Amino acid sequence: MKDLRSSADSEAEAVRDECLAEGRNPVREAINSGRTVERVYFQEGLRDETISSIRERTVKRGIPFRTVPRQVLDGISVKHGGQGDHQGVIAIVSEYSYADLDDVMIRLDREDKEAFIIILDGIVDPHNLGAIIRTADCCGADAVVIPKDRAVPLTSTVGRASAGAVNHIPVCKVTNLSQTIEKLKKHGLWAVCADMDGTPMYDLNLTGKIALVIGNEGKGVSRLVSEKCDMKASVPLLGRTESLNASVACGVLSYEIVRQRRAGK
Amino acid sequence: MKDLRSSADSEAEAVRDECLAEGRNPVREAINSGRTVERVYFQEGLRDETISSIRERTVKRGIPFRTVPRQVLDGISVKHGGQGDHQGVIAIVSEYSYADLDDVMIRLDREDKEAFIIILDGIVDPHNLGAIIRTADCCGADAVVIPKDRAVPLTSTVGRASAGAVNHIPVCKVTNLSQTIEKLKKHGLWAVCADMDGTPMYDLNLTGKIALVIGNEGKGVSRLVSEKCDMKASVPLLGRTESLNASVACGVLSYEIVRQRRAGK
Repeated sequence: MKDLRSSADSEAEAVRDECLAEGRNPVREAINSGRTVERVYFQEGLRDETISSIRERTVKRGIPFRTVPRQVLDGISVKHGGQGDHQGVIAIVSEYSYADLDDVMIRLDREDKEAFIIILDGIVDPHNLGAIIRTADCCGADAVVIPKDRAVPLTSTVGRASAGAVNHIPVCKVTNLSQTIEKLKKHGLWAVCADMDGTPMYDLNLTGKIALVIGNEGKGVSRLVSEKCDMKASVPLLGRTESLNASVACGVLSYEIVRQRRAGK
Repeated sequence: MKDLRSSADSEAEAVRDECLAEGRNPVREAINSGRTVERVYFQEGLRDETISSIRERTVKRGIPFRTVPRQVLDGISVKHGGQGDHQGVIAIVSEYSYADLDDVMIRLDREDKEAFIIILDGIVDPHNLGAIIRTADCCGADAVVIPKDRAVPLTSTVGRASAGAVNHIPVCKVTNLSQTIEKLKKHGLWAVCADMDGTPMYDLNLTGKIALVIGNEGKGVSRLVSEKCDMKASVPLLGRTESLNASVACGVLSYEIVRQRRAGK
């Protein structure tokens, strides 16, 4: 029982600490993203190529930095709910900020861009949310939409799992997903939800402006949200396991959209 | 409370780590898999549909079971490195066993099946390994191959993350991946490795007998293993993030293989 309680405590730490970029990739991405980096800590004695290039960019952008013994980095990491897995560098950055979906849509309409929005209906595992945000940036999506309630927000664990992608792609938090889908439809998007009983994704036309809806890890897409969608897409399941991991399903469906877009050109 | 705790402790003692199926899906999959389930623990007072169906199958298969207070389940879970996330049911199953790759290949040759083997070159995160095993079963792969050293083995965390798929698909542990690839080539398989600098996967012919090689989370596929491969396949990256999560990349590449096989029919 003690283990359970301390696990809850460290979760609380992680939520408070939304301003730590820990490890080489996350720090580099934070610096490159143009976000406010308040300070970078480097470990004494580390002089390899990656560290040198991060240090160079830190100086170039005029970011204050300190070189400290490894123990100090360990202390900063652990104190903020990290795993001490800082790889010799930690950056203190301003908190991840949410984008406004209306702003995103106005920009996409103006640029006449073929919009691709990923909507998450209640992802609760921060590793899944991070992997999905990473996937969203990789596959060229324009934004990720998460609900205000019953879902994990942008914590530092999410940021780490996203490998810094959280700095590159707008994440929008909305109150009501059904209303959001209605709004996106008015902007000309088709809504397609992941549904294991839906049409095999290869048999659907997924080109054009699109909103892809991925459901909760256990329960899938909720009925109210599903009813708002124009199409239900399934990933063919050829084995005995009943579903894919949510972030894997999101990746597979997203890249089917990418493939169809390329093929349609 | 004292009685409960000591009861939880003594139950927990009796259970060795890598033989715990925790949560509804993993327990159901373990029971359905035909593996040896030694005992099932149900939480007192839970009578919903899912639990009732698991209980029914437990009785039908003649598996001993006990109904215990929630605290006993918590104790068994936490003591064995779990998150206490048992959803009211835990099964004690025999340890995950590894399959022999030669046996798998003999069977595939005999059945004249279009082999699809997923080879993992140093996956260290148990959640990634679990998600990949889950994906492998979903996409119809015939086996997953992992190396003996510098990689995570089949732990209970892997089993949980696989949502029970570890019971459905052979996992083979080998000493030397390069030699394994050579051996698979003799069975007529083409080896394709995931490589961000490779040919876009849509432009490769991925039909026929195939071995898909996925690299370590940070370093990708090692040089020696990569050199044994016939093709290097990349997932197009359209954003600023440098790579996908390993399990997502595996899912996207695996389903491109599924798509090409279906299209080739």
